[in-house]
Amino acid sequence: MFRTAELGQKIPKHEFKEKAPLLRQDLLTVQQRLLQLKKFPVIIVFAGVNGAGKGETVNLLNEWMDPRWLITRAYDKPSTEEQERPEFWRFWRDLPPKGHVGLFLSSWYSRPLLDRVHGKIDEVEFNDLLDRVINFERALTDDGALILKFWMHLSKTDQRKRFKVLEKDPLTSWRVTQEDWDNWRIFDQFEENAERIIMRSSTGDAPWSIIEGADPNFRSLTVATIIRDEISKKLEAQQKQDQAAALAKTGASAARKTAARKTGANKTNPPTEAGESLSLTQLKQSTVLDMLDMDTKLTKDEYKQQLQAYQARLNELHRKALKKKVSTILLFEGPDAAGKGGAIRRVVAALDARHCRVIPIAAPTDEESANHYLWRFWRHLSRAGKITIFDRSWYGRVLVERVEGFAAEHEWRRAYAEINDFEQQLTDSGIVLMKYWIHITKQEQLDRFNARKEIAHKQWKLTDEDWRNREKWEDYEHAVNDIVEHTSTRLAPWTLVEGNDKRYARVKVIESLCSSLEQALKHNVKSWNRH
Amino acid sequence: MFRTAELGQKIPKHEFKEKAPLLRQDLLTVQQRLLQLKKFPVIIVFAGVNGAGKGETVNLLNEWMDPRWLITRAYDKPSTEEQERPEFWRFWRDLPPKGHVGLFLSSWYSRPLLDRVHGKIDEVEFNDLLDRVINFERALTDDGALILKFWMHLSKTDQRKRFKVLEKDPLTSWRVTQEDWDNWRIFDQFEENAERIIMRSSTGDAPWSIIEGADPNFRSLTVATIIRDEISKKLEAQQKQDQAAALAKTGASAARKTAARKTGANKTNPPTEAGESLSLTQLKQSTVLDMLDMDTKLTKDEYKQQLQAYQARLNELHRKALKKKVSTILLFEGPDAAGKGGAIRRVVAALDARHCRVIPIAAPTDEESANHYLWRFWRHLSRAGKITIFDRSWYGRVLVERVEGFAAEHEWRRAYAEINDFEQQLTDSGIVLMKYWIHITKQEQLDRFNARKEIAHKQWKLTDEDWRNREKWEDYEHAVNDIVEHTSTRLAPWTLVEGNDKRYARVKVIESLCSSLEQALKHNVKSWNRH
Repeated sequence: MFRTAELGQKIPKHEFKEKAPLLRQDLLTVQQRLLQLKKFPVIIVFAGVNGAGKGETVNLLNEWMDPRWLITRAYDKPSTEEQERPEFWRFWRDLPPKGHVGLFLSSWYSRPLLDRVHGKIDEVEFNDLLDRVINFERALTDDGALILKFWMHLSKTDQRKRFKVLEKDPLTSWRVTQEDWDNWRIFDQFEENAERIIMRSSTGDAPWSIIEGADPNFRSLTVATIIRDEISKKLEAQQKQDQAAALAKTGASAARKTAARKTGANKTNPPTEAGESLSLTQLKQSTVLDMLDMDTKLTKDEYKQQLQAYQARLNELHRKALKKKVSTILLFEGPDAAGKGGAIRRVVAALDARHCRVIPIAAPTDEESANHYLWRFWRHLSRAGKITIFDRSWYGRVLVERVEGFAAEHEWRRAYAEINDFEQQLTDSGIVLMKYWIHITKQEQLDRFNARKEIAHKQWKLTDEDWRNREKWEDYEHAVNDIVEHTSTRLAPWTLVEGNDKRYARVKVIESLCSSLEQALKHNVKSWNRH
Repeated sequence: MFRTAELGQKIPKHEFKEKAPLLRQDLLTVQQRLLQLKKFPVIIVFAGVNGAGKGETVNLLNEWMDPRWLITRAYDKPSTEEQERPEFWRFWRDLPPKGHVGLFLSSWYSRPLLDRVHGKIDEVEFNDLLDRVINFERALTDDGALILKFWMHLSKTDQRKRFKVLEKDPLTSWRVTQEDWDNWRIFDQFEENAERIIMRSSTGDAPWSIIEGADPNFRSLTVATIIRDEISKKLEAQQKQDQAAALAKTGASAARKTAARKTGANKTNPPTEAGESLSLTQLKQSTVLDMLDMDTKLTKDEYKQQLQAYQARLNELHRKALKKKVSTILLFEGPDAAGKGGAIRRVVAALDARHCRVIPIAAPTDEESANHYLWRFWRHLSRAGKITIFDRSWYGRVLVERVEGFAAEHEWRRAYAEINDFEQQLTDSGIVLMKYWIHITKQEQLDRFNARKEIAHKQWKLTDEDWRNREKWEDYEHAVNDIVEHTSTRLAPWTLVEGNDKRYARVKVIESLCSSLEQALKHNVKSWNRH
């Protein structure tokens, strides 16, 4: 989940200086439009790792935006005034009215996280607190509020570095306390509980964005861009809704006039998504895929030897799993010609064909279309002990359907939570779930496409669609990055496979499968007959 | 919560025979429209007390509706096939496709309830199971599904009667098992956990309806009417949405044609909400208010004596509560001229004015309108130990705003859950919450209005609005019934006060306040300084 925020993304000073003024202007413009429309409040929550720039970002936004319509609130231990009321009283009290923006620091997410990490509350209380938070946010979004949540992240190493830097300078050394160091020592516990909080509370209406906090320039521009874009989007949706309502009320002809007027109004306040403006995609130059060393290779001999060894090991584990009734699900995603099929065949070769099934996922059948998009995957879940391999999977919703526009934005956005929930049910019931993204570079794909053209028996594999998909290469890479951000959880992590060398990829797939199976069989697996 | 399902509502046989055929025709018509549109599935869940007619109702619907587009599923202990998959696999497998209707018996709500009552799962697991259920339903409703949930209720006494009747007849005696009797003995535990389940899972998109199950005719007609109305409503919303989409796509003029065509289509399949059809309001002849004995009275002497005694007691408890920092909130609702003001004055007379505040709730101020409707109540929560009295309250949302159409249906529907959540936060923080509905009969109100006209210093109390509100008397009574159904919980029950005799009403208010305060001060109150 946090891997996407440890990419080392940076914005050089000159670039920041060039881009910041434009963005600042944009922010002021949307703030003005928000105030004019006066239809909904904007609630922005900052949480995350200490030292990742929560406070600095809030200060910057205060500098960049119009402070008259901006409320900033940070919360410490409750005052006696506050203690004497229900816990959320202080948050309700501070909510921005319609047309205004509120920035919230160490707010309603602080207590669940801190108290859980320090063992002050148990699981029941932790879940109750999260329920309360979710209900609170839902009451606000149902009423029209826009809620944006930023999780500012630093890796454990980066946090230490940051503390050291602060401590060195006598002017900032006071900012690092003993408590900070104590918390640093239990960084992993923070991260684990943070992941649970983010998964639970990342609802379709109030999702989290995880921000790489190491570079101030990068994080500032990213946060500001998201705020600008999300407010703009909501403003437009609101205007469309108002137009539709007017249409329904006054009949079509009058509404056309309204629409014309509205468009006119937009001209005096130009929409900020114009081409010159900074976009989030431009900003995020790197994705998790850039962290892969695509030159990793195996020699023919290494390959032969390792493949054989791991296949033998896999076969043994497979038989044990059958006996213990531990099911396994593998899913493969990746660009066209990444070698998914080849990898799958090497896995299957080590398995008992009676206990293993490969499900190729193409366009849904009529029956499948008439059901929920997850239904077609539920129906293929196999009996205990078996292995099911999905060649492409439920991630189609947030990959091809997203990039090609087959799913509306609100549909694919909420799919992350739905998928996490689905996968949690799989792992909860004791299933070993392996998720592989086999990656190749754009050049490698081109070489493979060209090679396919040459070889008669591989020509059928190459379609016009493959060439079309190539044009959206960068969109797919960003989609993959979002997938890892939202769905690579402790229970169901993604395995990213360097696929330029087919041999290396195949061995890595089988090797990681073996090691997960080994883990699962060693531990006291949550039994499938729990219910 | 279940009081509204213990009113003894009945439909005589001849009335049933007369109404059933029409309703049946209606159901077939909506089923046809559903199938033609083929845009969403309908998922109907039955749960509740054994003997309250779950199975019979499902059988009846199978008889009345077209079985080709109807799936019925009941679940027992999971089969080995099912045990070997995640728990929800069997439910996913059975979901109806778009255009079809699914009836589900002893489904996803069975295990949480049974396992919790029998102590097989703890609080954490109970909450996790409910979360799963809520996520499951949300995934379906987000995808467009219509989910209707019926909780069939019998009182403890009625359940015993029902079992006895079944046992007497040799043909049905097998239906009552030892387990049924064992469960009957822990009826209260079932009810308590059922209430929690209903509160948690009654979301705006998938709400529960609580059905009085004692009379087969009444429950059958009620369930069938709700099914017909909710499917109709959703069909219309869907058609409107399709029209709006067409409008956006093809421009207004083309859309007008579509709209005209759609209207035409409706003519061949007449909308079933036509005047001749049975409506839910006609069906529910009684409300909880009919259970009140409106003739209850106190003599002048009784009144004097009791009022004095209880006021003295209240004053004593009030001082104790101040010391212990136990806050109290009272809210008063009721028809115009019911005597809310008079009752409040008698309460206040017993209190220390420095520690007590009366908040009259009228139309919201500008500032209040620019915020969430609950915000104006949050801001008035007082410090520990104090008493706050709301003259009218947050229930305005589901009373006047509902009846007068100031709030849209989706707004007031979700308000029940929001209010329950709000009140739970109050009681969780140790506040004693008293909710009073002071009731008078329509005739009594008329007498009081006329009396006001006569007395000069009371004339100002009578406005045109009062007379207008009178015209919607029955709508208000149904709204009150729904309030009690959805928000009279163990933690925050409603006190319904017979108000035709002002003396009796005032004494009852103070008496019940004393007894709740006593309870709260005796028990180890959850302390406000918990956080």
